[in-house]
Amino acid sequence: MRQKKVKRAKADHEIGAGEIGKEPESENILAEFKTTNVLSFSAREKSIFIHGKLADQDAVVILEKTPITEDSLAELFSDSRLKLDMRNDIYSTYRLQAPPQLNEIKTTVVCPATEKHVKKYQRQETFLVEETGEDYQSITLPYIQKQSLSIQWVYNILEKKAEAERIVYEDLDPDVGFVLLPDFKWDQKQVDNLYLIAITHQRGIRSLRDLTSEHLPLLHNIFQKGKAAILQRYSLPSSKLRVYLHYQPSYYHLHVHFTKLGYEAPGCGVERAHLLADVIQNLQSDPEYYRTRTLYFPLRADDELLSKFKEAGRL
Amino acid sequence: MRQKKVKRAKADHEIGAGEIGKEPESENILAEFKTTNVLSFSAREKSIFIHGKLADQDAVVILEKTPITEDSLAELFSDSRLKLDMRNDIYSTYRLQAPPQLNEIKTTVVCPATEKHVKKYQRQETFLVEETGEDYQSITLPYIQKQSLSIQWVYNILEKKAEAERIVYEDLDPDVGFVLLPDFKWDQKQVDNLYLIAITHQRGIRSLRDLTSEHLPLLHNIFQKGKAAILQRYSLPSSKLRVYLHYQPSYYHLHVHFTKLGYEAPGCGVERAHLLADVIQNLQSDPEYYRTRTLYFPLRADDELLSKFKEAGRL
Repeated sequence: MRQKKVKRAKADHEIGAGEIGKEPESENILAEFKTTNVLSFSAREKSIFIHGKLADQDAVVILEKTPITEDSLAELFSDSRLKLDMRNDIYSTYRLQAPPQLNEIKTTVVCPATEKHVKKYQRQETFLVEETGEDYQSITLPYIQKQSLSIQWVYNILEKKAEAERIVYEDLDPDVGFVLLPDFKWDQKQVDNLYLIAITHQRGIRSLRDLTSEHLPLLHNIFQKGKAAILQRYSLPSSKLRVYLHYQPSYYHLHVHFTKLGYEAPGCGVERAHLLADVIQNLQSDPEYYRTRTLYFPLRADDELLSKFKEAGRL
Repeated sequence: MRQKKVKRAKADHEIGAGEIGKEPESENILAEFKTTNVLSFSAREKSIFIHGKLADQDAVVILEKTPITEDSLAELFSDSRLKLDMRNDIYSTYRLQAPPQLNEIKTTVVCPATEKHVKKYQRQETFLVEETGEDYQSITLPYIQKQSLSIQWVYNILEKKAEAERIVYEDLDPDVGFVLLPDFKWDQKQVDNLYLIAITHQRGIRSLRDLTSEHLPLLHNIFQKGKAAILQRYSLPSSKLRVYLHYQPSYYHLHVHFTKLGYEAPGCGVERAHLLADVIQNLQSDPEYYRTRTLYFPLRADDELLSKFKEAGRL
């Protein structure tokens, strides 16, 4: 081991002093990497997180393809090999084999990696659950009532015991009022990824499932005043906003998400998000829509609620 | 041009008959591509959309790096060059130069490309449009009827004049039948970003707006047989699938998207996607649901339909 360390330090130095066009190669430490398992993977982002062993030590290796830059295009087009996959009318697809130096893969090695590193990068599979109105009553509601996840932090916000300085807008009405504040995921540095949450002052509305036509004044109020507050504070009109609820929500106190249209906020997919405008329309035409309808949502493999659905033979 | 076409047809044939390990190279048509401008770019997705000229014809070239697959890892680790960028404590980063055949770039060429194609790929701001049933009749429908974007390529698929070998499953019934095939966006190398499209044999159903309870047998058929075909071919159960329609769709011939749950496919956001299971439920309880309901969807700043909504004072 000690010898190896010396060798690596040398390689470091050499690279620091490397001449252009004659860049020294690092020792390919990955040649001896033994994959244990793939922790996670993104086809969209072209990345993969791998757990394995590097010289008998636990290691995590992260590979991520690099963005295609405009200044590499001319060379990429002239110096690559092209293999035809498909042709139909004016459309054709190919596989392009680029010169390696134009098409690098960003590689991050964590070694030795602790169990915490491994867990951090471990992706959980998700499953789509189909929940009928009866499933909600017999499986989900008892689970929500028993679960211990505290929403004290929500009450702290509503009572100004915490985050009071972060509030963007508030309507104090106990029935239709709400607090609007930035979501933690938003750094508030630019509106391109604007993300705010409206939390109702009314307590006891757990989720979409509890909503009936009785709640229409509350929903209208959040929709209208939330949009107006965002227009005033961030100059963003309602045509640039995606306003929606989650089902399942991550906490069971009614809240509404306001995100910028075009920003692909986590959880804005059709499998989890419900546009507030649709919710209002559906309740207008059927007061019991969300009590009776079958709802679909993803759950992670390690979610306790998923086990409940499995135990009930519903998955 | 004629000569070129003959050569390409030959290449097609050769690839169809290609032997493993001795795959024929396509003519590198991109060597003569002249970039006009970059239409859009995603650092997150490692893709770039380029407008330019190919033998004096307008063309759009789309480059997208391919996902890193688990089965390529062993070879990738052993056969790559590694260049150290940074080392700090247990963390180090490198640039990895992979063998070209392990690190291909998916390339799509549209040629000749129309102005509409160029616009389609040009990055634009989007606006959320609110379309009532009346708006559809007075604004959207006349626009669809007048627009010139050809769907000949859809008919080519249905008539087996193109992409016949890509078909994963087909139900030939003229009323409830459909063709299931991989979407262009999917390279079919791993199921993690599975993306298939079911295209109905029945013609004349433009979109969600045309659906009534009459179409329930068609929708049920696509849902059930599409899921069964995916289970059989890719071993992916329905609990791992997100099955949905787009509104507005990108072409006005009814089609259904099947994507892997957890893969954030472009267009799977709540503002554009409608779960097929929800569509079926909504039509079951109200046969005219999609004819009468106000629908919300994003439109790009340069979309002609957006101008129509503006002209009508609806935005």
